[in-house]
Amino acid sequence: MSKIRLALIGCGRIGQMHAANIDAHARMELAAVHDQIQELAVATAAKYGSCKDLDVNEIFSSSEIDAILVASPTDTHADYIEQAVAAKKPVLCEKPIDLNIDRVNACAGIVAKSSTPVQIGFNRRFDPGHAAAHKTMLAGEIGDLRQVLITSRDPEMPPDAYYRNAGGLLRDMTIHDFDLARFFLGDEPVEIFAFGGRLINPAFMDEIGDHDTAMVVMRTADGKQCHINNFRQAVYGYDQRVELVGLDGMLISGNRKPHEMRRYSASATAVGEPYLNFFIERYSEAFAEELTAFADCIENGTAPSPDFEDGRRALLLAEASYVSIAENRMVKVSEVS
Amino acid sequence: MSKIRLALIGCGRIGQMHAANIDAHARMELAAVHDQIQELAVATAAKYGSCKDLDVNEIFSSSEIDAILVASPTDTHADYIEQAVAAKKPVLCEKPIDLNIDRVNACAGIVAKSSTPVQIGFNRRFDPGHAAAHKTMLAGEIGDLRQVLITSRDPEMPPDAYYRNAGGLLRDMTIHDFDLARFFLGDEPVEIFAFGGRLINPAFMDEIGDHDTAMVVMRTADGKQCHINNFRQAVYGYDQRVELVGLDGMLISGNRKPHEMRRYSASATAVGEPYLNFFIERYSEAFAEELTAFADCIENGTAPSPDFEDGRRALLLAEASYVSIAENRMVKVSEVS
Amino acid sequence: MSKIRLALIGCGRIGQMHAANIDAHARMELAAVHDQIQELAVATAAKYGSCKDLDVNEIFSSSEIDAILVASPTDTHADYIEQAVAAKKPVLCEKPIDLNIDRVNACAGIVAKSSTPVQIGFNRRFDPGHAAAHKTMLAGEIGDLRQVLITSRDPEMPPDAYYRNAGGLLRDMTIHDFDLARFFLGDEPVEIFAFGGRLINPAFMDEIGDHDTAMVVMRTADGKQCHINNFRQAVYGYDQRVELVGLDGMLISGNRKPHEMRRYSASATAVGEPYLNFFIERYSEAFAEELTAFADCIENGTAPSPDFEDGRRALLLAEASYVSIAENRMVKVSEVS
Amino acid sequence: MSKIRLALIGCGRIGQMHAANIDAHARMELAAVHDQIQELAVATAAKYGSCKDLDVNEIFSSSEIDAILVASPTDTHADYIEQAVAAKKPVLCEKPIDLNIDRVNACAGIVAKSSTPVQIGFNRRFDPGHAAAHKTMLAGEIGDLRQVLITSRDPEMPPDAYYRNAGGLLRDMTIHDFDLARFFLGDEPVEIFAFGGRLINPAFMDEIGDHDTAMVVMRTADGKQCHINNFRQAVYGYDQRVELVGLDGMLISGNRKPHEMRRYSASATAVGEPYLNFFIERYSEAFAEELTAFADCIENGTAPSPDFEDGRRALLLAEASYVSIAENRMVKVSEVS
Repeated sequence: MSKIRLALIGCGRIGQMHAANIDAHARMELAAVHDQIQELAVATAAKYGSCKDLDVNEIFSSSEIDAILVASPTDTHADYIEQAVAAKKPVLCEKPIDLNIDRVNACAGIVAKSSTPVQIGFNRRFDPGHAAAHKTMLAGEIGDLRQVLITSRDPEMPPDAYYRNAGGLLRDMTIHDFDLARFFLGDEPVEIFAFGGRLINPAFMDEIGDHDTAMVVMRTADGKQCHINNFRQAVYGYDQRVELVGLDGMLISGNRKPHEMRRYSASATAVGEPYLNFFIERYSEAFAEELTAFADCIENGTAPSPDFEDGRRALLLAEASYVSIAENRMVKVSEVS
Repeated sequence: MSKIRLALIGCGRIGQMHAANIDAHARMELAAVHDQIQELAVATAAKYGSCKDLDVNEIFSSSEIDAILVASPTDTHADYIEQAVAAKKPVLCEKPIDLNIDRVNACAGIVAKSSTPVQIGFNRRFDPGHAAAHKTMLAGEIGDLRQVLITSRDPEMPPDAYYRNAGGLLRDMTIHDFDLARFFLGDEPVEIFAFGGRLINPAFMDEIGDHDTAMVVMRTADGKQCHINNFRQAVYGYDQRVELVGLDGMLISGNRKPHEMRRYSASATAVGEPYLNFFIERYSEAFAEELTAFADCIENGTAPSPDFEDGRRALLLAEASYVSIAENRMVKVSEVS
Repeated sequence: MSKIRLALIGCGRIGQMHAANIDAHARMELAAVHDQIQELAVATAAKYGSCKDLDVNEIFSSSEIDAILVASPTDTHADYIEQAVAAKKPVLCEKPIDLNIDRVNACAGIVAKSSTPVQIGFNRRFDPGHAAAHKTMLAGEIGDLRQVLITSRDPEMPPDAYYRNAGGLLRDMTIHDFDLARFFLGDEPVEIFAFGGRLINPAFMDEIGDHDTAMVVMRTADGKQCHINNFRQAVYGYDQRVELVGLDGMLISGNRKPHEMRRYSASATAVGEPYLNFFIERYSEAFAEELTAFADCIENGTAPSPDFEDGRRALLLAEASYVSIAENRMVKVSEVS
Repeated sequence: MSKIRLALIGCGRIGQMHAANIDAHARMELAAVHDQIQELAVATAAKYGSCKDLDVNEIFSSSEIDAILVASPTDTHADYIEQAVAAKKPVLCEKPIDLNIDRVNACAGIVAKSSTPVQIGFNRRFDPGHAAAHKTMLAGEIGDLRQVLITSRDPEMPPDAYYRNAGGLLRDMTIHDFDLARFFLGDEPVEIFAFGGRLINPAFMDEIGDHDTAMVVMRTADGKQCHINNFRQAVYGYDQRVELVGLDGMLISGNRKPHEMRRYSASATAVGEPYLNFFIERYSEAFAEELTAFADCIENGTAPSPDFEDGRRALLLAEASYVSIAENRMVKVSEVS
């Protein structure tokens, strides 16, 4: 069977990872790349056999491109999604869709009218541990779900330049946790309360009006509770855990380790290495599985998941959180919808 | 050296545990007991060599009683504390001081005027794991503290009769977590938001106007964040964990297990037994250490810790939580002080 | 019900531990003590209310002594067992019975003719983890047993003076593991091969002709295999593990920890404290349970377990090991029986 | 830089895995394949772009083949190694070199006279956990090594047909553990004692004169001790552990898990999935790293490790074990050299 011919738009750090994953994927090949820095695109194309450096219009018009992966800067995502939909090419787009919810809503209208698959890059749903927890919960092993707890901590503060343009902690980092929360809750949070903190680099946070620490609680219409905590300086490594509490049990999806060697000395036992740092390493399996799901959308017609609406809903939760932080009160998600 | 002669008021389940711990303690002896059900007191006294069954007035007036442990029903606590203070007998009183904050405040005035040690039975501070986390944090190993997460889940719903009179989930169960939060934060929470849930036995919770599930977030004046989650049906056993996140690391105090045997089969690896059930088993070391701290107050003049004010402050956080739940909003703790 | 009145012979380190355990035991009281250093016996008696300092003849002849616990030097064990049997007083005797197998065999004849319970102090059978593994295996959860692996490492070399008189590593330390091996195998090892090592303090080991390291393999008549490893310098703490491999699964009984607090830093995750040091701490629960089993022999007529023959068999395995080490060959246990 | 052009001889199960790993390797490409079943070779070649199906003579004579990977049946290994050496093409050959030690010794003479790199496929040295243990030990963290313990258990009995031709448990399975033992000991075992068992399928083992269970102990000239245990029916999954005991500490390299999700229920806590099954999954990282080491031999001139002599020495330990089993005695390795 011939492979799905993918075009990759955006050849930065995460684009490079996607390029390698596409190349290694049994059902895909990297047919074309594009980047606003052309030499980067050229260099990337050169690494992958028959891959071409194309401009964007060629990508969308070419009959030799089957599908698109968008890993370009955030403010181009919605445009590329719309172009892909217009060209009837399935698209997998990195999160977030846009930092502006109005732009997202406008794009949603276009996506909704089309049957072209649009998948959003919330890769964590595909992590083997998280996915096993989801599957085990759906199989009924912990009975009815009652609480979800998500721990999500970066190993270190991102570069200042990145931070200034990332759109705020809750749109940039927590957005993944909002998606996981919805994924596990199987239901929409309707009420949210959030504390934003400036507890790692307060001076810089004050300057850019952003946060480096957060705690969020949310509730669904039927009362299920969810807690998210974020911190940008987990010196022990990228910390990614999910805990599901049900009437008949609990599931915990914990951290992957570099290996299973443990040290024992006069001062300590069972000492493990710091956790994998950073998301490309921690979620390497998830990024590969994400592509398989996208291949299934394209080849088998399965519905994309997470889809555009998942991307929009996660952003709404970020919006609601910002209202909560600004006004120091509980916010109904309906207020921002 | 002669032993400290303790009188125990209240010979119910927790009183029996204290009686055995006092009897086994190297620096204490059980000199007298009292219970409103006299035959229970008589039977208890008979179990411990030279222990006498005395009425309350005798206990407070006897020169052969050095100190008091109060394990009677909650609504008698404040009275007994006041009597102990009047008699200049150091007193260790089970939590909560009272379900009514006004009664607590009145008692506080009396306690404040006296130098008689009053210790409150927040035993968890003495758990070896929790205490080691506290000590390690104070030693600077995780740098400045930024987040505290407390997981506190009972193995099963208490009997209905108990539930009706316990004063509400947050005054009865969460109060221990409020104390731990203050203990680890080393600082007062000033803002609090709480979700109360009726997610295990909604019909009964509706009937008695109480909750069986909760999520709380709090913040100190300098921004440190704290999360507490409660659930009354952790079928896998009493779940008691504390997580401290600092700028230089993390500490987790986890669950004690009955033993370290693990099973491996065709379907599972490293299978442990359910956690210890219930608090008397889980916190057995803590209850013994609590007595040692009390002995130190009596013999060495160390300040009681947790003291009456700790008991009052924990109750204030419960009060503030109830306002938050009732009005579905963030509450400043100063509103209820 | 009146308590069993125990006399303790031997008030050294392990005797002190037994004294405290007897005093704390719900069904026993410490009625008398004896030690060859009389002031030690007097001081010990003074710590326990009505306990008396008696000479040995009084202990065996007194109608106010129900049973004997022998914790005196090894070369007195067999004599005291014989005196206890003659006096028809149940006796719990510390291991080993004697360093000389001929003396043990002579004593065996006397014990065999009597119905007085003789229990040997192989406390490890009563460790909650080890006992749970045994019970789980007997319940059939791992199917037919095929391999037993025992790891047994002391935290540090004992004092030289102790080492000179301990009778050799395999009679002093491995003997516990030989008992555990028989306990789990449920069958007699018939073939044994042992390596003795001088790998920690070779000069001293050469001088006294002893070992500080060992590896043993054994086999039962039906082919079940067992491995024991010993090491006298596990700087990370007393290391005590048992692994049972069956046709349908595996059980591992691991190390108890001081508490469940773990540290996470820039260089390490899930760091635990060193293991409990030493046997009195690690096997505290086992020593208490051992007394309960002894009480059951006395009050309920249950057969003592481990009994005298268990003590003799463990010593035979040590004897066979020494032949194996001396002649560097596989030895049939029947050669030394 | 151009990639190393590899030819793969043998396209069975392990050959397929190597083919995929070579194809995914950044510094290698699969240029040719061969198999005695030609249609298998053709099908394999078709899966990898420019890969050709060649006969063996073409492979060794072609100037377009830089190096050879031998994954054909064991009885062809020595011949292919000799042909590769004659053709001056670096070769990575699967273990064991041959089941007949005389054939191995003859081949050794030819390899020794050549400077062509010959690497043997003892992949486990490259496992991230095992490799980290080795590196940490060499860095001095556990001081001088004293004991090595290797647990190596297959998840299930191999097919009968395989078993009949595998050359015996110790040449087929334990040989990996013999290599690991030498790798960690950094020294040659000089004495060995082994128990072979027929404890899983005794009838079949009797019929073919083989074993399904083993325990081995070995000792180096300076006294370091090593234990290996093997079992062919670890129903809980492929069990692969190494434990290193030194004067200053211990290292344990444990089992990789499919993911880090754990289950908690009314009957169990922290329940993990069965271990990865089988070696291709468990040692996936090791098989990839093995290729990188081979690339380093070819491109950078590093000495192959494990090399031919490592392969021969591991086989000698298997030979010595068989003498030990046959004669039920300790065997000096020099007896079989």
